[in-house]
Amino acid sequence: MKKSNLDLLILLAKAGGIEKEILTTSRELSKMLNVSPQTIVRWLEDLEKDGLIKKSESRKGTLVTITEEGVKFLEKLHEELSDALYRGIIIGEVVSGIGEGAYYVRQYAPLIREYLGFDPYPGTLNVRVIFPKTIFDALCNVRPIIIPGFTKEGRTFGDVRAYRVKIDNIEGAIVIPSRTIHPPKIAEIIAPVNLRKTLNLKDGDRIRIKTL
Amino acid sequence: MKKSNLDLLILLAKAGGIEKEILTTSRELSKMLNVSPQTIVRWLEDLEKDGLIKKSESRKGTLVTITEEGVKFLEKLHEELSDALYRGIIIGEVVSGIGEGAYYVRQYAPLIREYLGFDPYPGTLNVRVIFPKTIFDALCNVRPIIIPGFTKEGRTFGDVRAYRVKIDNIEGAIVIPSRTIHPPKIAEIIAPVNLRKTLNLKDGDRIRIKTL
Repeated sequence: MKKSNLDLLILLAKAGGIEKEILTTSRELSKMLNVSPQTIVRWLEDLEKDGLIKKSESRKGTLVTITEEGVKFLEKLHEELSDALYRGIIIGEVVSGIGEGAYYVRQYAPLIREYLGFDPYPGTLNVRVIFPKTIFDALCNVRPIIIPGFTKEGRTFGDVRAYRVKIDNIEGAIVIPSRTIHPPKIAEIIAPVNLRKTLNLKDGDRIRIKTL
Repeated sequence: MKKSNLDLLILLAKAGGIEKEILTTSRELSKMLNVSPQTIVRWLEDLEKDGLIKKSESRKGTLVTITEEGVKFLEKLHEELSDALYRGIIIGEVVSGIGEGAYYVRQYAPLIREYLGFDPYPGTLNVRVIFPKTIFDALCNVRPIIIPGFTKEGRTFGDVRAYRVKIDNIEGAIVIPSRTIHPPKIAEIIAPVNLRKTLNLKDGDRIRIKTL
């Protein structure tokens, strides 16, 4: 896709133009975007005409700031892209877990029944997320159900965030420990049934998970 | 800013073109984007030439799917906008809390010392977030420090997520209970000093918070 004044607007935002006036020159900007200084001058004028930036010339160069309307424009585009990219579809590849899932599902089973409304099959389906880049990207706009942690026989089990999902027509949930900071690469899915068996899945199969 | 083939690409993504082939017509797309069908035909050709979509004609209309390259393009733009918009700057307005902050800061004080490395002033500075739209937007890419919950005199205090920030030159932290699902409108900030007094702030003052 050809470069446009949108690229310039994003560059100005990255350079700090949202919060304050920045001092720059069309030569400097032209180098950064790899277009001619004339093109930059024209784009700056376009952006100003559209009310997205304000600019004034000084002896040292051009003072530019992004207007409130400009910020709104960028925010709207960001939101549209979020909607477009993260529409609640996760694509992943079935992988084998290390068998720990079953143990944890058993411990949380009464709470899963209480908070999610189903008796979980004791085991998780592990899926390596291919799209989007991380599970967190996919789940950013989904409201989690928080399964509260508890202590049992001296062992502490932390809060778990559960996100309702559907695979084919089976409803289940992706479960992530609340204390996890890094986006996990593997989505662990619980469901009322043995998903691997019911959906006849084997390692390497591609599946589509829909968030609810 | 003028509409372009980027708008069309986003529309196709929203319509489901990322995961599968969608059936559409240039007339239908032209209505949705409020441009002429001829423009749509040209944009579709541009997008195909750039390798961002694949299309084929059928008797019922045009079958379109976004290529892997097209998805990468949208993801990159989304990331750039995230960087540009959420560069770790939060702009907000000082407001009065209801005085609960002091109580909680006292309870967590030993853990704040342990996890954040400072003795907190017993009180929080409350800031109504103006930019970005929510605190979560601003903190999405910041790694939190998780202050673990505890029980004291029969009362349970949950995990707290702390995000290191700087206001003027004072380092502190935004603190958010881990179980919070909705993005709070108010950022509660702790610091080694009484921020309101040290920075001479009163209700309604605008401040800039920088995440670290």
